Amino acid sequence: MRIHIQNSPGDALFAVSPQQWQEAASRAGESGHEVAFGASDADFATGVARADILIGATSTLAGRFPCHAPDLKMIFCMSAGVDRLRPFDALPAGAIVVNNSGVHGRKAGEYAAMALLMLNARLPAVLAAQRAQEWRPVYAPSLRGRRVTVIGTGDLGSAAGRAAAQFGAVVTGVRTRAVPHPDFHRVIAADALDSVLPESEFVVLACPLTEATRNLLDRRRLSLLPAGAAVVNIGRGALLDQEALCDLLDSGHVSGAVLDVFVPEPIPTGHRLWTTKNLVATPHVSVDDPLTYNPDSLDIFFRHLRAWRDGGEMPNLVDLGRGY
Amino acid sequence: MRIHIQNSPGDALFAVSPQQWQEAASRAGESGHEVAFGASDADFATGVARADILIGATSTLAGRFPCHAPDLKMIFCMSAGVDRLRPFDALPAGAIVVNNSGVHGRKAGEYAAMALLMLNARLPAVLAAQRAQEWRPVYAPSLRGRRVTVIGTGDLGSAAGRAAAQFGAVVTGVRTRAVPHPDFHRVIAADALDSVLPESEFVVLACPLTEATRNLLDRRRLSLLPAGAAVVNIGRGALLDQEALCDLLDSGHVSGAVLDVFVPEPIPTGHRLWTTKNLVATPHVSVDDPLTYNPDSLDIFFRHLRAWRDGGEMPNLVDLGRGY
Repeated sequence: MRIHIQNSPGDALFAVSPQQWQEAASRAGESGHEVAFGASDADFATGVARADILIGATSTLAGRFPCHAPDLKMIFCMSAGVDRLRPFDALPAGAIVVNNSGVHGRKAGEYAAMALLMLNARLPAVLAAQRAQEWRPVYAPSLRGRRVTVIGTGDLGSAAGRAAAQFGAVVTGVRTRAVPHPDFHRVIAADALDSVLPESEFVVLACPLTEATRNLLDRRRLSLLPAGAAVVNIGRGALLDQEALCDLLDSGHVSGAVLDVFVPEPIPTGHRLWTTKNLVATPHVSVDDPLTYNPDSLDIFFRHLRAWRDGGEMPNLVDLGRGY
Repeated sequence: MRIHIQNSPGDALFAVSPQQWQEAASRAGESGHEVAFGASDADFATGVARADILIGATSTLAGRFPCHAPDLKMIFCMSAGVDRLRPFDALPAGAIVVNNSGVHGRKAGEYAAMALLMLNARLPAVLAAQRAQEWRPVYAPSLRGRRVTVIGTGDLGSAAGRAAAQFGAVVTGVRTRAVPHPDFHRVIAADALDSVLPESEFVVLACPLTEATRNLLDRRRLSLLPAGAAVVNIGRGALLDQEALCDLLDSGHVSGAVLDVFVPEPIPTGHRLWTTKNLVATPHVSVDDPLTYNPDSLDIFFRHLRAWRDGGEMPNLVDLGRGY
């Protein structure tokens, strides 16, 4: 196969190196591929024009389609969400899209646990008291028995569900259909979300951004949360109405939020997302482990390459109609 | 038995109520005790003068001895650490001291998990970037495989050990003697601490404050930590040299600290503990769950009352010579 790997210029931490590629190929028992690495726009044009397979992060590939890629058969995204590849009809006809879902779980679970524990302990208010140099004890009950609703039951959502359950929370998963899932005490269908929000002390957004999930937690749904509820977002910024969330944090109805994803990114200087009371903003770092990200992603790539060749199962094949 | 319960004036959250007492007595199948509740200095003097048993938090009892308590046979501390009852030779002769060790574990585990996940994710630096309204991604590896050293293997320490192990950290426990403990991958004796500090990426202080542990993490030992190490304190402020820790945070040798206990408490306005870089200060709230604290403590009291009467085992009997 002729494979083009497009890295982002200047990204020393997450660029795929020839050594990482070689080691992953060796683990997979693969050889004989013709591989090119690029980082510039010219590299992309040259590489994709003759490639069978394109590999790159969606942030690196976003905005590059349509392009001249007559032989392209597979795009392997070094990302789980593919929303930035929209519009999908601009992608080369006939090329399948495969994502790296599965590499984000461990870090996502750690981030979700950290966020839930921080919010349960009212740490945003405690941090504000520290900044004011005021000793204001807040004694929070344990997370045990608290009601956590996780929207999305994929790699991120199931990791968040396990993390919450580890601390004894009662965890509801929300997915397209109400099919049980081992990482949740119960699962409800997305169209029943309104019924569960009034009893959700914590909501974790961990689903893909699609036309169906855009603005899912809008002002009306956020207002359905009980007083003192808290919100975590490790999915995509556009899953929620940021302005409404900031208003509810200002009013105190929502007691805290830990957000890793935003519209736009980076957050501009002066934006209220930086300064809203009890809002902790982390710069889209929740799920990426620099030590394991590329090796794990390439292992997924090679498993799917083999399945594609042999007609095997491809769990990470993206359904472009569905959007994930 | 004549029992005097001394509450702290104005403490609505942690005062033992007659109803809590009655419910705990009922759970234990106990009746017939003559119980008095007090909150003032006069209440204390009158109550303890005729009591067989005194119940109160060490913060409430500190500074009240010596006192006239001719019949006193047991002091039940609604606290785990009894360091604030020093000097012990001022306590009524012949009265045993029992603490409530065991009620703090769940919250201690949650706090330790939160602190380790925050420090591993470099959250103190991320929070500083948020305050500066700067998008500065820090991609941290997972906690899996990181080396965590927990000093103290009692109720708090073992909960911290379990929490760290839950996330795949490699956990060393430090206790008086190197006796294995199920919540730690290995246990070393306190006198071998220096040998393990240079490889400790995280240190959690969770031991009692005694004459042997005062200033345990002094400037010399803190300097043995590897560059980038982080420190958590859920024990007592005097277990470490706060000035040295602040200096090492300022220099960047220590990457972060999450501290719940200090000298003095409350931290005075203007003290560097409020403002030192990458230091998160919480106001002595890490281990107290207001919903379960009194019921769980009173259950421990009644179990020890029965054991004392019947000659049974009293695991929470404080060895005043040892200090815990």
